[in-house]
Amino acid sequence: MTIKVRARAMVRYVPILDWGKRYDRDALTSDLVAAVIVTIMLIPQSLAYALLAGLPAEMGLYASILPLVAYAVFGTSRALAVGPVAVVSLMTAAAIGNLGLTSTAEIAAAAITLAFLSGLILFAMGVFRLGFMANFLSHPVIAGFITASGILIATSQIKHILGVSASGQTLPELVHSLVSHLGQVNLPTLVIGVAATGFLFWVRKGLKPRLLALGLVPRLADLLAKAGPVAAVAVTTLATWGLGLTEHGVKIVGDIPRGLPPLTLPSFDLALWGSLVGSAVLISIIGFVESVSVAQTLAAKKRQRIDPDQELIGLGASNIAAAVSGGYPVTGGFARSVVNFDAGAETPAAGAFTAIGIALAALALTPLIYFLPVATLAATIIVAVLSLVDFSILKRAWSYSKGDFAAVAATILLTLGFGVEIGVSAGVLLSILLYLYRSSRPHIAEVGLVPGTEHFRNINRHRVLTDPRLLTIRIDENLYFANARFLEDYLLNRVVPDCGLMEVVLMCSAVNQIDLSALESLEAINERLKAMGIRLHLSEVKGPVMDRLQRSNFLEEMTGQVFLSQYAAMMALAPVGAAAPDEIDT
Amino acid sequence: MTIKVRARAMVRYVPILDWGKRYDRDALTSDLVAAVIVTIMLIPQSLAYALLAGLPAEMGLYASILPLVAYAVFGTSRALAVGPVAVVSLMTAAAIGNLGLTSTAEIAAAAITLAFLSGLILFAMGVFRLGFMANFLSHPVIAGFITASGILIATSQIKHILGVSASGQTLPELVHSLVSHLGQVNLPTLVIGVAATGFLFWVRKGLKPRLLALGLVPRLADLLAKAGPVAAVAVTTLATWGLGLTEHGVKIVGDIPRGLPPLTLPSFDLALWGSLVGSAVLISIIGFVESVSVAQTLAAKKRQRIDPDQELIGLGASNIAAAVSGGYPVTGGFARSVVNFDAGAETPAAGAFTAIGIALAALALTPLIYFLPVATLAATIIVAVLSLVDFSILKRAWSYSKGDFAAVAATILLTLGFGVEIGVSAGVLLSILLYLYRSSRPHIAEVGLVPGTEHFRNINRHRVLTDPRLLTIRIDENLYFANARFLEDYLLNRVVPDCGLMEVVLMCSAVNQIDLSALESLEAINERLKAMGIRLHLSEVKGPVMDRLQRSNFLEEMTGQVFLSQYAAMMALAPVGAAAPDEIDT
Repeated sequence: MTIKVRARAMVRYVPILDWGKRYDRDALTSDLVAAVIVTIMLIPQSLAYALLAGLPAEMGLYASILPLVAYAVFGTSRALAVGPVAVVSLMTAAAIGNLGLTSTAEIAAAAITLAFLSGLILFAMGVFRLGFMANFLSHPVIAGFITASGILIATSQIKHILGVSASGQTLPELVHSLVSHLGQVNLPTLVIGVAATGFLFWVRKGLKPRLLALGLVPRLADLLAKAGPVAAVAVTTLATWGLGLTEHGVKIVGDIPRGLPPLTLPSFDLALWGSLVGSAVLISIIGFVESVSVAQTLAAKKRQRIDPDQELIGLGASNIAAAVSGGYPVTGGFARSVVNFDAGAETPAAGAFTAIGIALAALALTPLIYFLPVATLAATIIVAVLSLVDFSILKRAWSYSKGDFAAVAATILLTLGFGVEIGVSAGVLLSILLYLYRSSRPHIAEVGLVPGTEHFRNINRHRVLTDPRLLTIRIDENLYFANARFLEDYLLNRVVPDCGLMEVVLMCSAVNQIDLSALESLEAINERLKAMGIRLHLSEVKGPVMDRLQRSNFLEEMTGQVFLSQYAAMMALAPVGAAAPDEIDT
Repeated sequence: MTIKVRARAMVRYVPILDWGKRYDRDALTSDLVAAVIVTIMLIPQSLAYALLAGLPAEMGLYASILPLVAYAVFGTSRALAVGPVAVVSLMTAAAIGNLGLTSTAEIAAAAITLAFLSGLILFAMGVFRLGFMANFLSHPVIAGFITASGILIATSQIKHILGVSASGQTLPELVHSLVSHLGQVNLPTLVIGVAATGFLFWVRKGLKPRLLALGLVPRLADLLAKAGPVAAVAVTTLATWGLGLTEHGVKIVGDIPRGLPPLTLPSFDLALWGSLVGSAVLISIIGFVESVSVAQTLAAKKRQRIDPDQELIGLGASNIAAAVSGGYPVTGGFARSVVNFDAGAETPAAGAFTAIGIALAALALTPLIYFLPVATLAATIIVAVLSLVDFSILKRAWSYSKGDFAAVAATILLTLGFGVEIGVSAGVLLSILLYLYRSSRPHIAEVGLVPGTEHFRNINRHRVLTDPRLLTIRIDENLYFANARFLEDYLLNRVVPDCGLMEVVLMCSAVNQIDLSALESLEAINERLKAMGIRLHLSEVKGPVMDRLQRSNFLEEMTGQVFLSQYAAMMALAPVGAAAPDEIDT
């Protein structure tokens, strides 16, 4: 039996043991097709994102091999395509930029350590089932953050299109740096950059309909459209080589070591860990949220499930794999996963096959991309990230809720103005404070009986029966420390000037929690009402709340009773059913 | 009309204009009697608390004159006795201790600046109506903090009883410092200290019943019991003078400048402001919370009201008054206010009369207390603060809620172990995180129809009617970012394996808010259910929530309908009223 339990635990933590048993030729074919398409997409992206992260281009390839295999073993999503992604690359650049390093070896070691820390954090969150922590990133904060990151990324790539050197981690810094270098624009680079960007936009928007109109089958048209970046890479590389453009100042990718990823180890320098751990937490949570939301969306389309806590373990394993094989932080990419899914990936094995594709590229293709212009890679990044930029969330939030709008707007402005880490941290903090603020001043309604029914509604919105001896208050919120005093103030203000009052009923149908602070407020309210000769009652208290109240001695101290329904309370305390509304209601 | 509006605003911000008009001879008599009793209590306390704060004794007297007048003008509580209090004095000591100052003049200047900053913060919170911020201090955190502060204060005074020099801001530091100085105990000091402590405990517990038994009228017995500390001061001062105990190493209060408070100005050194502002925020909020809770309790006893936002202005004015007259941070004291109330104080004028009493003491009495032993003052502090120490909150919280227990225990341990500022900050942070955690995994019940009624209850607790085509989920919490994904996960896990399912109804009777994150989760749930051929419906959505949903286009996108009641939903989607429970429920 112990063995059986262990085996079940193994299957839970190593999902490949489950789906691997049922793997067949059909699944193999589907996975292989998907892997080919994703590989074609991933080769230029992995190089480009590594440069965005401020790292040598080959680290992008390395981050696309072992991490994908690790995810195939430990991940639960059948369509998630793991690897370097734009936002995490930008966050990596910011984290390493904070360290003020200059030597490439030190920067690479820091990136490897960052991947390792991020892997440990994700893994620990998975084991301790802390996936819920990601929930504190609200959707508006994520949306604002992704949009602002897209703008920062696109802006950071403009220097490669212009062929100038510029730097900065915030929008004002980047713009200022670009403007001050405008005099040094390199014309051949600009031509390549603008042409590649234009071509890629056209491929994205216009190529597929054109191919379909030419009579191509949709699948092939789709594949050709996906290969657009590869075509841009090939053409600009050939042009740069053939026309000798490096002599005219066109920057190229240059020498990329040929071969499989090296075995690497993270640094165990505690000072470095200390300065990277905050960034690693942010990268882990942002990466997890991005990844799990696309995985969930794709799984639901096939009535499949993913296990968010196991996803943490899968992504943790991927990042640790990145750290031991010369990579940098990875996560599940949105666009690439959708492509993987659409291409028919059936199991996580598709990711492992992609890894083989990238490994072959690392073995064979690197000499061929020696002359690849950096401007072309910048163009692929710009075209990819501009699809992340979406200001519609601002309009949507404005019309739905001003609090959510404030959170989005602050996240966008702070991310653009002060960088990714301050932006996302401030967004999280602000959305928590806004929620607490809102629930600290809850909606409180004074209710009366709707004639002819047993229902009680707000006296300000409905024609209802009330009695001057009886006050019924419905609190539309949990009672907890942040609003306990609010209720005290509200009740005292309402009760003190009302001399005919004998009974107060708190209707608790929308109260899901009463914490100790609120319990003490209720006790204080009970005492103060008692001093005024008024009894306090409760009605419609939920089971779990009642269980808890019974563990205190409040119910014995309370001057009044607990009624199962508000109707029962009114019948017992001030029966008015027979009277006409006009006689009672004023 | 503008004048009238202005006059009304004046009365709102300067309450003395309101009650001052109706002031009469009866109120005057009551206020004078209360002022005499409070003055007798306040003279030794103000000296003792100033020494606790690490300040010259006279600053305690100064903090008990002008601040009381300012509160009488701007405060709304008729019984609150403002002045130096134990916990705020301890926090002042901690705040100034952080600065590492050594000269008395610099320390006094820092205390004056702290009072000024605290006054500005309180005043600003009052003007911008930010009193709700105090709500984030939960009752358990306050109770834990006050208990731990009481222990710290009592421990910090033991050195004066022993006649040794010791220091420290945390319990381990204090105990270690005391133990290492045990060899230097001064015997005469110890005798005075222990005798004074014993006498004061006896006065507190045993004197009043004894006096009553001797036939004294209760009012007089009470007054004599209140004068206990004055008697201890007089006797030990005379003994020290008469026996020449200073020559035997008994430390005395010594020279206190005779006269009214000096006019002082806070420092405007921005670096000093920067290092004090965090402490000033904590002192302001703790002081406000302590003050407003006693003021509210006392006001309710006479069916009076206080205005918490105006209290902020009153306390702000008091602290600014302390800063311009050589004082240090003040607030409303718990014990002293109760005494003031019991002694019959009718209006804030009682406070102004107390100020006159203390001013007379500062003018006339200071030479008389030259020989007052510091050990006697320490005894009055120890006896006063031990009534603050109350561990029953731990037991109470344990039985009521483990989350609240964690918050109290952490606050007590961290305050004792790391000092007041870390203790209270960690307590606040922890209680917010625990609340968010709890609401991030809400109670979700699957409900069915109670036969013969229109009520729906949990299928796990009640025998109810259900239908395999219909799933009804009741969420007992607001839907917001922290639990939006939880609902997504819960629903997908529940729905995916259930093949006969056609309709899902979310019953929203306990949902008081749906924020944008939760709206997007609902949209995702709707999309995913749609992909599985299942319709999503809502029932019992509250008015304010419905208003908001109508501002989005979710209701148009939703595959199902919004039902006014859950019963209407079941009747429309899966009418089972006629079937017996056993035929349907499994």
